[in-house]
Parts: sequence; structure tokens; C-alpha cells
Amino acid sequence: MTVTYSSKVANATFFGFHRLLLKWRGSIYKLLYREFIVFAVLYTAISLVYRLLLTGAQKRYFEKLSIYCDRYAEQIPVTFVLGFYVTLVVNRWWNQFVNLPWPDRLMFLISSSVHGRDQHGRLLRRTLMRYVNLTSLLIFRSVSTAVYKRFPTMDHVVEAGFMTADERKLFDHHKSPHLKYWVPFIWFGNLAAKARDEGRIRDSVDLQSLMTEMNRYRSWCSLLFGYDWVGIPLVYTQVVTLAVYTFFFACLIGRQFLDPTKGYAGHDLDLYIPIFTLLQFFFYAGWLKVAEQLINPFGEDDDDFETNWCIDRNLQVSLLAVDEMHMSLPKMKKDIYWD
Amino acid sequence: MTVTYSSKVANATFFGFHRLLLKWRGSIYKLLYREFIVFAVLYTAISLVYRLLLTGAQKRYFEKLSIYCDRYAEQIPVTFVLGFYVTLVVNRWWNQFVNLPWPDRLMFLISSSVHGRDQHGRLLRRTLMRYVNLTSLLIFRSVSTAVYKRFPTMDHVVEAGFMTADERKLFDHHKSPHLKYWVPFIWFGNLAAKARDEGRIRDSVDLQSLMTEMNRYRSWCSLLFGYDWVGIPLVYTQVVTLAVYTFFFACLIGRQFLDPTKGYAGHDLDLYIPIFTLLQFFFYAGWLKVAEQLINPFGEDDDDFETNWCIDRNLQVSLLAVDEMHMSLPKMKKDIYWD
Amino acid sequence: MTVTYSSKVANATFFGFHRLLLKWRGSIYKLLYREFIVFAVLYTAISLVYRLLLTGAQKRYFEKLSIYCDRYAEQIPVTFVLGFYVTLVVNRWWNQFVNLPWPDRLMFLISSSVHGRDQHGRLLRRTLMRYVNLTSLLIFRSVSTAVYKRFPTMDHVVEAGFMTADERKLFDHHKSPHLKYWVPFIWFGNLAAKARDEGRIRDSVDLQSLMTEMNRYRSWCSLLFGYDWVGIPLVYTQVVTLAVYTFFFACLIGRQFLDPTKGYAGHDLDLYIPIFTLLQFFFYAGWLKVAEQLINPFGEDDDDFETNWCIDRNLQVSLLAVDEMHMSLPKMKKDIYWD
Amino acid sequence: MTVTYSSKVANATFFGFHRLLLKWRGSIYKLLYREFIVFAVLYTAISLVYRLLLTGAQKRYFEKLSIYCDRYAEQIPVTFVLGFYVTLVVNRWWNQFVNLPWPDRLMFLISSSVHGRDQHGRLLRRTLMRYVNLTSLLIFRSVSTAVYKRFPTMDHVVEAGFMTADERKLFDHHKSPHLKYWVPFIWFGNLAAKARDEGRIRDSVDLQSLMTEMNRYRSWCSLLFGYDWVGIPLVYTQVVTLAVYTFFFACLIGRQFLDPTKGYAGHDLDLYIPIFTLLQFFFYAGWLKVAEQLINPFGEDDDDFETNWCIDRNLQVSLLAVDEMHMSLPKMKKDIYWD
Amino acid sequence: MTVTYSSKVANATFFGFHRLLLKWRGSIYKLLYREFIVFAVLYTAISLVYRLLLTGAQKRYFEKLSIYCDRYAEQIPVTFVLGFYVTLVVNRWWNQFVNLPWPDRLMFLISSSVHGRDQHGRLLRRTLMRYVNLTSLLIFRSVSTAVYKRFPTMDHVVEAGFMTADERKLFDHHKSPHLKYWVPFIWFGNLAAKARDEGRIRDSVDLQSLMTEMNRYRSWCSLLFGYDWVGIPLVYTQVVTLAVYTFFFACLIGRQFLDPTKGYAGHDLDLYIPIFTLLQFFFYAGWLKVAEQLINPFGEDDDDFETNWCIDRNLQVSLLAVDEMHMSLPKMKKDIYWD
Repeated sequence: MTVTYSSKVANATFFGFHRLLLKWRGSIYKLLYREFIVFAVLYTAISLVYRLLLTGAQKRYFEKLSIYCDRYAEQIPVTFVLGFYVTLVVNRWWNQFVNLPWPDRLMFLISSSVHGRDQHGRLLRRTLMRYVNLTSLLIFRSVSTAVYKRFPTMDHVVEAGFMTADERKLFDHHKSPHLKYWVPFIWFGNLAAKARDEGRIRDSVDLQSLMTEMNRYRSWCSLLFGYDWVGIPLVYTQVVTLAVYTFFFACLIGRQFLDPTKGYAGHDLDLYIPIFTLLQFFFYAGWLKVAEQLINPFGEDDDDFETNWCIDRNLQVSLLAVDEMHMSLPKMKKDIYWD
Repeated sequence: MTVTYSSKVANATFFGFHRLLLKWRGSIYKLLYREFIVFAVLYTAISLVYRLLLTGAQKRYFEKLSIYCDRYAEQIPVTFVLGFYVTLVVNRWWNQFVNLPWPDRLMFLISSSVHGRDQHGRLLRRTLMRYVNLTSLLIFRSVSTAVYKRFPTMDHVVEAGFMTADERKLFDHHKSPHLKYWVPFIWFGNLAAKARDEGRIRDSVDLQSLMTEMNRYRSWCSLLFGYDWVGIPLVYTQVVTLAVYTFFFACLIGRQFLDPTKGYAGHDLDLYIPIFTLLQFFFYAGWLKVAEQLINPFGEDDDDFETNWCIDRNLQVSLLAVDEMHMSLPKMKKDIYWD
Repeated sequence: MTVTYSSKVANATFFGFHRLLLKWRGSIYKLLYREFIVFAVLYTAISLVYRLLLTGAQKRYFEKLSIYCDRYAEQIPVTFVLGFYVTLVVNRWWNQFVNLPWPDRLMFLISSSVHGRDQHGRLLRRTLMRYVNLTSLLIFRSVSTAVYKRFPTMDHVVEAGFMTADERKLFDHHKSPHLKYWVPFIWFGNLAAKARDEGRIRDSVDLQSLMTEMNRYRSWCSLLFGYDWVGIPLVYTQVVTLAVYTFFFACLIGRQFLDPTKGYAGHDLDLYIPIFTLLQFFFYAGWLKVAEQLINPFGEDDDDFETNWCIDRNLQVSLLAVDEMHMSLPKMKKDIYWD
Repeated sequence: MTVTYSSKVANATFFGFHRLLLKWRGSIYKLLYREFIVFAVLYTAISLVYRLLLTGAQKRYFEKLSIYCDRYAEQIPVTFVLGFYVTLVVNRWWNQFVNLPWPDRLMFLISSSVHGRDQHGRLLRRTLMRYVNLTSLLIFRSVSTAVYKRFPTMDHVVEAGFMTADERKLFDHHKSPHLKYWVPFIWFGNLAAKARDEGRIRDSVDLQSLMTEMNRYRSWCSLLFGYDWVGIPLVYTQVVTLAVYTFFFACLIGRQFLDPTKGYAGHDLDLYIPIFTLLQFFFYAGWLKVAEQLINPFGEDDDDFETNWCIDRNLQVSLLAVDEMHMSLPKMKKDIYWD
Repeated sequence: MTVTYSSKVANATFFGFHRLLLKWRGSIYKLLYREFIVFAVLYTAISLVYRLLLTGAQKRYFEKLSIYCDRYAEQIPVTFVLGFYVTLVVNRWWNQFVNLPWPDRLMFLISSSVHGRDQHGRLLRRTLMRYVNLTSLLIFRSVSTAVYKRFPTMDHVVEAGFMTADERKLFDHHKSPHLKYWVPFIWFGNLAAKARDEGRIRDSVDLQSLMTEMNRYRSWCSLLFGYDWVGIPLVYTQVVTLAVYTFFFACLIGRQFLDPTKGYAGHDLDLYIPIFTLLQFFFYAGWLKVAEQLINPFGEDDDDFETNWCIDRNLQVSLLAVDEMHMSLPKMKKDIYWD
């Protein structure tokens, strides 16, 4: 579920963001504590080996190695690589959110343009609406692991009421080697055309309005599918991951406290705990975690989109809107500013 | 309220921006003076301890610690992290402004397409307009703390004239576990469809024009809601905050003036007041404050959007436009360039 | 007036951009020479004091101070702060240009869709067009200092022929605590609706075409207004300005030529004129000037938009197009490629 | 074929991205192993020459050269150049993906707006759909090497059923020195206009809906063509390539391990294998490979778009949708949430 | 003419981009060889003076100067300034390409919506199409130097068949102090309105479709004009040019090889040819050349848009499409996948 904290930062106050540092759900600590422990244990192990096990000559060699590693750790351009990469990931993530398919626009149109309060009219509106929801469900199944778990087979889709048994049969009847998530849209178009013939939809202007809106919905669906299908090229992700992992590997050796008595530059002090290196671990690994969380926002992370909730909300709300609320109107009364 | 200073910088003049440095409202000083005092007090305290309380050996140890801190303070990539993060926040902030829902487009259409100067016509136009305003109010209530304070319950909404008692009843009558801010749009659609049946709206072209515009309004509303619901991932904000806070923590110790007689590199001079470190505090903490202010532009900061004002303006102006000004026209006269 | 130099750089030639370095109008020299003189005088003054007035011990102290300042000058992240900030300003500036309201789209539609070559038809078209121009004038008045100077009161607007006296009266008659720049658009809608009733506009398709186009025009107007109303947060501008000013303050002391005989690192040479520091002044102050010029493109800078010219052009051209040129057509003849 | 890995990173887990490091297809290793071997061999060769063949004086000279190269290697701004360039390439690549022409929007419209279940109606719909597919095929032929290999001549296009022999003749009959991929769109417009005359398309609203959608399709086609025709300026690509190649050339000499006994700064240790330089090779060369892969996404790389698959899918699906599925509808039944 | 090399980089291969380094047309070498020669000659001259002409004391002074220059050369933020600036230029350049006016969308509409195969019908369609081409020609004349050379006066426009003598007369007849490139659009609108009156265009839906498309075309034209009129502010270009030129000026002195026997840090080696400085010249000057080439893409550079070719193609193709191909249709036949 998305972690919403915007109400906590509505006003810029005294050390405004510090409160955010104390949250657990969706936080850097929850995401990173395991990696942090591994890093700290490895650092400690190396430190103990250096301090207790190595002989003098081995120590000297290790010290040279440490200085060598430190020098190159600073040359690894982690900041820039991460900056450019995370910007790319964040943009894609937000575009995916913006393109989540919501049936609201369609339900307003169907409610006002498909006429008839009798059973046939109700059936018409509910069926049109169901086709729309069905398509997005089919897309979500192939995009989101959480939705796929909930609807592993088409039987589950039928069971959940998104599809009738007849529709299932016709759906399976059309043979195609390709994905068929667009089939309910064809039904939508055909049903709308039929409704126009029957006069339930008044004229072509209303019909084309519906079709345009339906095509917009389809674009959202196919864009979501596109984001899932064509991700950031694997090479880019590997380059970034390699850069970060290498940096920390270099730090494990390069940021050890060396014997201050040897007088190596910048090694006058032995603090035992490399406080700034640990903090750097939090920055960089945390920054990479931002990317890991957002690169596929349809998983089950704390910050991922709640697709299953969306599916339920959309079906419930859209059926309510086109059926029970069709032509329901409060009595018009003068408002309090009249004259 | 938004701080507008663009008229002050209309022309690029001699040291043009220096005048901006002297403003208080919405300024860096007003936002930062508390943090600045805390920082300065801590710095002074550490400085006094070092100068007055520590023994010689402790001083030597502190000096090493200070040099160590200084070295790592420079390695913290505050500039880049802030650069990328603030760019992201500023983009989101501006998009939220651009998507504030304004009813103007709808009121022009309603005024010119919904006919009838009699009471029923007036009621129709005013009611349509009111539904539009009601929806944005419902959205603003869940997005903006300032609006929520003003309208803590639906009773306040009714009282303020955005909803009649009948509408309230029908609104509550529809049972849904989900937010119902879209209900007035259903009413809008139904009422418009009814008006077309009655001939108040002439044909489907006019009706669909209204519906399209209404859907555009809805998109603004839902986008605002989306920005509030799905914020910048908490991890990202924490990474940036940690980086900045760590930097200043490192500066508190690392930027102390050490005893010049000890001959540490870069410590030849004891100025007592670390002028450049204090300025750096202003840059970086100020830059972070930009993010704090903009990350939720619906709070009560000096620079936040004046949502309550918007709500009032929109209701007042839109009722005026569709009622009093409906079909009101100045007498056409030849302009002065005629022939 | 905008400084256009694109024809000068049509082709990439031998040292292609060097010619641009010799321009005066809109140039970095014209914008910066005053600041440059101030900087140079201050630098010289400090230099003279150091060289001629200070005693030996004071000189030593000043030298330490200079080295201290130089060290921190390099730590100020002027480049990045400016890079991110100027990118933001340039994007806003270009968006403002792109959203300047041009009535051309509307005038084509009005000329071809509002029929009748008689006096009433002419009056209709001219009045519709005038309302459009009037609205943008009202917006420009509140956005641009140059336009405000030209039309300080509504009387000037009437006098210039954008409004008739009757319209002025009706405009003032509508009481609202809010800006009323949208009123002429209501008139536009009402007048167009009336024209449709009279059959001057043939059907709803034509009418809605006009209304859509008018709403597009309104969006341009209100976006311009928005850019003026909600600027870049003051804090951001202050952060950038502080960074640049601090940098130059640090340079004034830190970039002095110290006595080469003292053997300070990097101070082997006394050139008297700090050529590279002066060039850095040009880069950074010039970069900031880019922001100063563009942050409000409606002033009277060399590079600002010529809004007064726009207003005149739009009125003249649009009246010409809908009146004199309405239904004027050259005789159709076969072109030279016929068969 | 595109390498899809998003399901592997659905959740941010313990060292979440490390699994990606072990993939082969589309990976950095597969793309770089040849370059890597060349680099390693050259490095080893130089190392062996230095260690075994050079005399003492030559060694001293080489050491100086190595230090000189190392110093300049660090000055080459590979990171930034690559950062800006790859961002540009990635944006273009994604826009090309988003603008791949899919006939789905058109097929919904044709299926619901072009009436008649008789043979003529079927022929009409199939032919319209075929024209659409034909155009995108013509575009793909000039954009994608893979498609060009499959359809080297127009005969192949006819053979594959995208064009009939009659169409081929008429197509060739129109003489033009310019590309003629737009010809099928003219046929599409003419055929649709004819269908309207015959009453197969009911009115202008339906017809213009089709034409608008067809023009959208055309824009996708021509944008793809534009991306192919006007690439990133050659100079930019050369600048980036030169920077990266120069960097590695400088590294070959500058990152050699020099004799530790000579006491050169930073050369205390002889590790034989320059582990960090090799890793840097992976970062930078890998980053450049991202650009190489994406700069033309219509080739045959692991990560390129599967255009041939698209062509087949589009023809198969769109004919199915407008013919077999035209007016096919499952029986409407009450859904399980009815009442 | 645009330099297209995308087919050369379709697949990411072994050292994929190295082949691009060997091209001449549109290459960095062709663009830079003159500047490079100047730079090399100056460097050599200074080198010779230092080595052969200067006395010992002068040499010492020059050496100090060289070290001073080198130190500041590194402080000039060429990389960032160029990175941000080139990104801006590239974005503008691409937007200009995307907004080149193509008449294809209009020609499809005219061919299918303006009826009549008789001479009057042909004349109507050809004239409408010609007006569209005429407008873009007028715009191109003021934007592109190449087009202006080809059509220096309106007589050339008439001669080339874009305008008839009658049209020329009427065009000149309308007096306006402003540019009149929009006049043919007024004719277009008037002619289309007339065609509707005559029944050649069937109804308002068709007419408004044409007008909308025409307005889109106009937006392209005026956006191109806008890009030419309001360029990147001169100050920005000057700042960047100054930064790059200063950098190279500093390099001329600062990157000289100093006498190795004097033991200056980093001056142990005399290579005579400053290989890395020359390469840096290629990076930075090449990067600036990218900007020079793209800042006005309507010149006659190797990489500029072929506007004259566009003009010819558009006229030829669009006349062909609306005249010869109007209502021309291949005989409909069953495709090979039928059943």
C-alpha cells in the first residue's frame, strides 16, 4: 500500500522533515536494515582480522591495499549515475500512476447517454461498464504480481463476476496466438452500436463520445502494459547496480581505520565505528532502493500501487454509478445565494 | 498566501536580485531562523568546550576528530542529491498548480448552452454550476489541511451553501466503502441529460461539449487527489534529509577553528565566527526548505496555494456568470476603428 | 524587445559563435558592466590596502584570511545551484512565450463561421473579435509592467477602442470582489449563442467549435496570469542569489595576489589583474543575469516579450481578418502545375 | 527481442537487484565481453612490456608517461558527457516505443461504425484495416533493418497479403519522386467517403471519427520515420565516443601498476590485476552500450523492439476484430452483483 | 542535408560506435578542423617561443604563469555549463523538427471531404491545398536562410506556382504593418465556407474538421516562427561561449610542457605534443559545435533540415493526393486471409 505522508509535511516547520526520519513503514530503515547488517558484519569481520589476526607484514600489505581501495572508491561516480538513473525511474513510475485506468469518465458518459430505466437499459449500462472493468483486470493480471496471485486463472475472473460464463466461452472461441485483452472492447463497441440502433443511444455524437472515451481507456491500459513489457534496458540497471555494489565493496576495505601510529595521511584517528561510511551506505543504498521500489510499482512493496483495491473500487463504483444512480437526481432547490 | 515578487524583478537591473534578499515574508530568513539559531548555539557550545574545558590531550583528540569530520563532510554529495530532489519536487508542485480546478471553462459553456431566462432555467444553470463547485470542494477537503479545518464535516459544506439538505440526504443514501466525491458529477450528467430532454440544451453536440468539459474538470480534481495520495516515496525524502542533516552534524565538529599554533593544514587562522559554514547552512538548509515548502502546497505556508480563497472565488464568480450574466449583453456599437 | 540573433548563427562556421561576443544590445556586457565596475573597484581597493597600507603583521593576517576565503570559495556549489535554477527559469520563460494568447485561430473560425456581409454581420464579427482582444489586454495589464504603464486605468482601455462606453458601464455594473477579466468571454459566449439563434452561426457544431477555441484562448490567458501570480518560490531565488553573492564576496579577498616572496602555495606570481577571477565573474554573474532577465519576461528588458506590440498587432490583424477579409477571395484559377 | 525483467523486481527485497547481475541475455556481459577481452589483453601486453622488456631508463620514462596519463584520465568528464547523452538517447528511445503504431483504436471504430454483415461489408472493413496495416509496414520497412530483411521488395509485401496485385499496380502508377507510404491512407479516406455515400457509414460524425483516428495513426508512422531520418547529430555521438575511448586509452597506460619501490605517490602496491580500472571499464563502456543499444531500437539487439512480431500481430488481430468479431456479442446476462 | 547514420548503428556490435568516428560529412572533424589548426598553431608558437626565444628569467616567469593558468583552467566549469546549455539547445532543435508543417493530414481530409470530380471540384481542392503550401512557404522564407535565397521576393513565389497573379494582387491589397503570412489561411477558411454553401463540403462536421486541421497546421507554422523570433537569450549563449573560449585560452599557456628539470609538480615529462589537451579541445569545442549546429536548424549546415526539399515534396505530394488520387481506388478484392 502506498505510504502517504503529505499531511505530515503540509507546513514547513522547525526541522520539518525530521519527523519523517522516525517512520518505519515504507522507510529507509525497513528497506535497508538487512543489507546494513550484512555490511556492518563484513566491515567488523575485516576490521577484526586486521587488528587481531594479521602479522606485521600482512598488516602493512593490508594498509596499502586499504589506501588503494579508498582512492578508487572516491573515483566511482556513484552520485551521478544514481542521480540520472533514479530520475529516469521516478519519471516512469509517476507516468505509470498517471496512466492507471479509472472508469470514472466513462461511467459519467454511460450514465447520461445510454437511456432507459427498464431492465434492458440497466443490463445495457451494467454490461458496458463491466466490459471496461474486465479489460483493465486482464491488463492488471499480466502487469501486477499481486493481481495475478488473486486471479491466477480465467476461472477466478468469471467467479469474481467480471465475466459471465457465456462471455468466457465466446472469449475462448476466438483463436489468436496473441493476447486477447482487447476483446471486451470490441464487445463494448458492438454493444454500443447496437444500442444506437435500438435508440438507447440517441445519435452518433453520443456514440462517438463513448467510443473516444473508451479508446482513451484503452490507451491507459496499453501504456501500462507497455511500461511492463519494455522496461529500462537491463544494461542500464546493471551498470548502476555494479557501480553501487563496487563502491561498497571498495569501502569495506578502503574505509578501515588503519593504525594511527603508522602516520598514513588521513589516518590519525581510530574511531572503531566508521560513522560516515555507514551514513554513506544509507544515502547510496537508500537511493538505489528508491529505484528498486519504483522500477516495478505493481508489486507488493509498501510503496506500490494498490491494484487489487483499484479493481474492487472501480467495479463497485462504476456499477453503482450507471445503475442505481442513473437518472437519480436530488430535487432542485434554490441555493442560499439565490438573489 | 502565495508570495508574489515578479513585479519586483520585471527588469534586470543593477544587482537586480539584491532587493529580494531583504524581504521577510516567505523568505529564507523567516523559514530558517530557528534552525539557524540551533545550529549556531550548538557550534558555539562545542567551540567553547574545545577552547575552555578540554585538557591538552583531549584537545589533540578533538582536533583529529574535527579534521576527520571535515574530510567526510566534503564527501557527502549534498549538492547533487538536493539538485535532483528539488527539481522533482518543483515539477510536482507546478503540476499541482496547473491542475487546480477552475470552473471558468464550464461556466462559459453553461451560460451559452443552457437556455431559458425563467426561474427553471436559472435554477438549472445554478445547480449545474453548484455541483461542479461541490466536487472540487470535496476534493480540496481531503487534500488541503486549511480547507479541512474550515469544513471539518459535511454539515459545514451544507451550511456554506455548496449542498442543499436534499442533496446531502441522497449523497448519504448511496452506500459505498469508497470516496464519493464523484457523486455530484453523476448528478451533473443526469441533470444535463434531463435538460436536453426538456430542450433546454439544444442538441447532443452541446451536451457532449458540456460532458467533455466536465470530465476535464474531473481529471483536474482526481490528479490533485493523486498527487496527495501518492507522494514522492518516503525513502527518497529520507535519503535527502539524512544527507543534509549528516552534513551539518559533520560541520558542527569539522568546521571548528583549531588552534592555529598546531599547524594543521588549512587551520592557520582563528576567526571565531565560521562565516562560510554559516552561509553554507543557509544554502543547503534553504534548498531543503524549498522542498519542504513545496512538497505539499496545500498547507498554510507563506508560499502555499490559497485554496480557501479559490473555493470562494469559484463559487461567487461561477454563479454570477451563469445567472446574472446569462444572456446579458452590452449593446453592440461600432468600434472606433470602423472603416 | 526580443534580441533575435538566429540568422547570425544559421550555419556553424569557423569560430561560429565569436561574432555573438561582439554584440551590445541584450549582451552580457550591457547587462553586467555596472556590477563589473563595482566588483573591479572593490577588488582594486582591497588590493591597494593590502599592498600599500597594511603593516607587516597585518599583511600576514590578511594573507591567512585570503587563503581561508579562497579555500571556501571553491566549496560553494555555484555551478550546480545555477545550473538547476537557470534550467527551471528558462523552462518557465519558454512556456510563457508558448502561451502568449494569439487570436489567429479564433479569427479564422469567426471569419468562416459567422455569416452575413451586411452591417449587422460585420458588427457581430468585429464585436466578437474585440471581446477576445479585450480579455487578453486585461490580462496583460496585470502581468506586464509595460502594458500597465500604457493603460493605467480602464479609461485608457476605452479610449484605445478596446471597449465601448456601454461595455465599460456593464463591466462595472457586475460586482465581484474578484478579478473580472473573464467577463468579456461571457459576452462572447452570449453573443455567439445569440448569433446562432439568429442563424448567423449555422449550427451547434460551428458554435461549439468557436466556444472550444475561445476556451483555449482563455487557458492561455489564465496560464500567463498563473505564471505571474505563482512564481518560483522566493526561497529558491534567495538561495541562488546568496550563493552567487557569497562566492564573489569570498573572491574579493580570496583571489588577491599575495606576496610571492612568502611562498604560499599557488601564489608564486603577481599579475596585478586577476584575469581569471574577472572571467569567472562574467560566467557566474552572467548566468545569474540570464535568470534575472527571464524570471519575468514581461518587463522592459532587451530580451523581454514585446507585449504592447502584440496587443496592437492582434487588434489590427484580427479586425482586418474578420471584417474586410470576410468572404474576400481571389478568383480561382488553374495553377501552373494543372495537368 | 525485448528483455523483460520487471517481474523479477516487483518487490524490493534483500539486495534486490543482485539477481539481475546474473542474467546473460541482454546483459552488460554479453554486450561487452569482446571489448572487455580486448581491453584486458592490451592492458596485459603493456604491463608485460613494462615489467619484462623495458630497460631501467625506459622504465623510468614509462613511469612518467603513466603518471601523466593517469592525471589526465581523471580530467576527462566522461561521467557528465555520458549522463547527458544517455538521458537524451533514453528519452528518444522511449518516445519511439510510445509512438509505435497500433491499429487497435481504429479497429474498434471500424468494427462499430462500418455496418453490414454481408460480403461487401466484410470486404469493406477488411480492406480499410489492410490499408492501415500496409502503411505501417511500408514505414517499418524503411525504419527497421529486421523488417527490411523480411520484405526486401514490394513483391514480398504483396506475397505476404498486405497488398493485392491491383493495389500494387495502382500504387506504382502514381509517379512521385518522393516516398509514397501515405498512398494507402488516401485510399482509406476515399473508401471511407464511398462507404458513407453508400450508407455503410452512417453520418459525418462517424466518418470524421474514423479520419481523425487514421490521422493519429499517420502521425505515429511519420514520427517513427522522423526519428529514423533525423537522428541525434553525429557530432554529439562522436564527442561522447571520443571521450569514452580516450579515457580508456589513457587508462591503459595510466592505470598500470608502477614499481612500488620507486615511491611514486599512490603506487605503493602492485596488485597485477587492476580490479577497479576493470570495473570502471564496465561502468563507462556499459553506459555507452546503453546508448548504442537504444540509439536505433529497430535493429536486432536483444533489447530492440520486435517489429516483425508487431506486424504479424497487428494484421492478425485487426482482421479478426473487424471481420469475425463484427457485431458478435455474448448474450447479455445479469451479472452476479445485480441488486 | 541531414546526416542519417541510424542504419549504421542498428545493432550494438563490437566497438559499435567506432565506425562513426570515421565519417567525414557532418563529422566533428569537418566542423572543427579549422579551429583545431588555429589552436594547434598557437600552441606550437607559444611552445617555440618558450623553448627557443625566452631567456632564463623569462622562462621562470612563463613557467609560473603557465602553472597559474593551468590551475584556473581546471576551475572553469565548462562541463556543466555545456551540459545544461546543449540539453536546452537539443530540446529546442527537436521541437522545431517535430513542428515542421506537413500537409498530409489536411490532404487526406480534403481528398475525402471536398467532393466533385469535375473541373470546379478539382480547382477547389487544388486551391485549398495550394493555400496551405503557400503559408508554410511564407513562414519558411522568414525562418530559413536557404529558402530565402531561393525565394528572395514575392515574384519568385508567384513564379514557382505557389501563388497566382490575382492572389498576389489581393495579398498586396490588404494593408497591414504586420506580417501577412496568415492571409492564405483566411482565404482557406472563406473558400471552405463557400464550398459548404455550394454543397461541395457536406456538413458542418466536415467543415469544422477541416478548420481544426488547418488551425493545427497554423500552430506548427507559428511555432516555427516563434522559435526563430525568440531564441535562447543572447546572454546565455555568450556565457557559454566565453567559458569555452576562456578555457582554451588558459590551456594555450597552462598546458605547455615545462622544463622537466625544474621539478614542477606534474611536469616530469616533455611529450612535445599535448595529446590530452588536444583531445579535450575536441570534446569541448565539439560539444559547443553541437550547439552551434542546432541553434538554428534552418541554415545550410550538413545537419540542418532540408526545408527546400520539404517545400517541393509538400506541394508535389499534396496536389497529387487531392487531384489525381481523389476518389481513385483499387478494385476491392478478397485478401489472402479471407476465411
